Amino acid sequence: MRQLDVSKLKALVTAIFEKVGVCPEQAQIIAQTLLEAEQRGVHSHGVVCVTRYVDLIQKGFMKANMEHEVLRSAPAVEVWDGKRSNGQVLGYYAMKRAMEKAKSCGVGMVGVKSTNHFGAGAYYAQMAQKEGMIGIALSTGSPTMAPWGGAEKAIGNNPLAIAVPTREEIPPVLDMAQSVVANGKITNMMKQGIKEIPEGWALDKEGMPTTKMEDFYSVTPLGAYKGFGMSFMVDVLSGLLIGGGVGFEAGDFKDGPGIMMMALDVAAFRDPQMFLSDVDHRIQELKSVRKAKNSSGIMMPGEPEARSFAECAQKVSVLPEIMDSLNDLARQLGLEPVE
Amino acid sequence: MRQLDVSKLKALVTAIFEKVGVCPEQAQIIAQTLLEAEQRGVHSHGVVCVTRYVDLIQKGFMKANMEHEVLRSAPAVEVWDGKRSNGQVLGYYAMKRAMEKAKSCGVGMVGVKSTNHFGAGAYYAQMAQKEGMIGIALSTGSPTMAPWGGAEKAIGNNPLAIAVPTREEIPPVLDMAQSVVANGKITNMMKQGIKEIPEGWALDKEGMPTTKMEDFYSVTPLGAYKGFGMSFMVDVLSGLLIGGGVGFEAGDFKDGPGIMMMALDVAAFRDPQMFLSDVDHRIQELKSVRKAKNSSGIMMPGEPEARSFAECAQKVSVLPEIMDSLNDLARQLGLEPVE
Repeated sequence: MRQLDVSKLKALVTAIFEKVGVCPEQAQIIAQTLLEAEQRGVHSHGVVCVTRYVDLIQKGFMKANMEHEVLRSAPAVEVWDGKRSNGQVLGYYAMKRAMEKAKSCGVGMVGVKSTNHFGAGAYYAQMAQKEGMIGIALSTGSPTMAPWGGAEKAIGNNPLAIAVPTREEIPPVLDMAQSVVANGKITNMMKQGIKEIPEGWALDKEGMPTTKMEDFYSVTPLGAYKGFGMSFMVDVLSGLLIGGGVGFEAGDFKDGPGIMMMALDVAAFRDPQMFLSDVDHRIQELKSVRKAKNSSGIMMPGEPEARSFAECAQKVSVLPEIMDSLNDLARQLGLEPVE
Repeated sequence: MRQLDVSKLKALVTAIFEKVGVCPEQAQIIAQTLLEAEQRGVHSHGVVCVTRYVDLIQKGFMKANMEHEVLRSAPAVEVWDGKRSNGQVLGYYAMKRAMEKAKSCGVGMVGVKSTNHFGAGAYYAQMAQKEGMIGIALSTGSPTMAPWGGAEKAIGNNPLAIAVPTREEIPPVLDMAQSVVANGKITNMMKQGIKEIPEGWALDKEGMPTTKMEDFYSVTPLGAYKGFGMSFMVDVLSGLLIGGGVGFEAGDFKDGPGIMMMALDVAAFRDPQMFLSDVDHRIQELKSVRKAKNSSGIMMPGEPEARSFAECAQKVSVLPEIMDSLNDLARQLGLEPVE
């Protein structure tokens, strides 16, 4: 892994997007989401995405600057056509709008069809969390899983992210793919030349479990039929419900994924101060139970990522292969690479 | 298993609740939810619950008839104090209210604190589904799981149910506990004298995997930390957010669980006819992929239960031990047992 200065890397990523026509404000949003993923240790959704997004912009599958049209509007709901704009930028503005809706109705949902890869869902859920709300972010994805019982990839491992505010404790953030591990985790291992996959993560072309990278075909749904069921529900809520892409239609070179941003205004449900105290208390209660044999301790959802974020305030580790590609791209665009 | 006539069994369950003071309308709601669970093959949430609920009514932990107070109200949100009324009846009326809110705002959320066990969440989610809406039902539960990494039970395997309407296909219903299998499934096996638990289902007092019924202590969270994370989020959304019981406070003899009912009015998001067609099409697409080796086929969430429901229109199978307890209770209350 290569150690890089966060601010330099962020400046490079911002500059790259500006070079391909993204306005400074939106380039900043994209860079911010990708760098935060790196700092949180979620390398599969970090700067590895830059070359992919630039390629999509250059090929005309991603608009350099956001365009959107409001298709439907109800007091607590809005649905947009994202017109293949950048997923991070759409996610950012859709969550902002969901939070406005939540302020007036208690809950707000903003769905966007025809988007692009939104990176780590945690980012949008945390936007609400930072305002004292509960944030939920969903996205369809192109197929990485077979329906349970099947042997052909047909459904994404559709992420679900939920973030909850606290008073003193680390705010919990669940950001999970509906597979045992994210597809990107296995493809990142592949890039590092790793030949063995841990048991339970992967299936081969016959839909049978495999630990050999060379036989890797699809990721295993979490809890078998339950993970498949959850993925289907994410397909419905962030795809079919708003006319967004599901399955192969959610792919980079098709209609792109659909996303759903949801915010809950705690004050509509309960006194926010009592809520924050109760969340803190519940976290303390759960973390203080006796440890399992051989356990290194109890972690709340998002706690490892929050610890990584704090440790990586100044510097992040990036795979050499990923940095090489990023610097190659920088040079092509006439920018100074970072080391 | 004993074969019983659905209408006779339902009449008995209704009569039992009326005998302990429940009004006919509400006794009917309770009986309907329990019988539907039996017909759907979800025996852990069927008539096995009757003796438990009657005991709670007799001991004063469950109100015979619903009382509730509206604590908070926003255009799309309502929060009730359920005053320890019956969980099925509160769930039924809370989902009705959530559907009204959804009709005016696009989405409606109604949370109830101080409830009681609501049985199978699928029932409430399906209420919305039957009206062409998407229904979501959540409940906290008393501890059956240890936090991941811990060895002491401190969190429920908090159910999440989501139901989606269709045009022609079987409407998908996901109703899942956040553990590999529901706690009730293992305790039902215990009642049948089964000594071995399938691998991966259960943990012992040290938080280590076990297959011995005698060492069974807690259920394994689905996908390890992910299932724990999901359970925590259900604790937040249907518990802490509305001041409802979580952990031991969600127990029958404490404050009882909190529940959250949510309905989405499809028309606020998209043309409902196009939505229904797309859901049908997506189901067909997923079910038609090539089968995995040794697979018996691809089932959508809730499909096995829907098939069981159709087969059990007239008769259901109930464990002899459960029927014996139910008939004992009937006799005690001066009612005719059913055979």
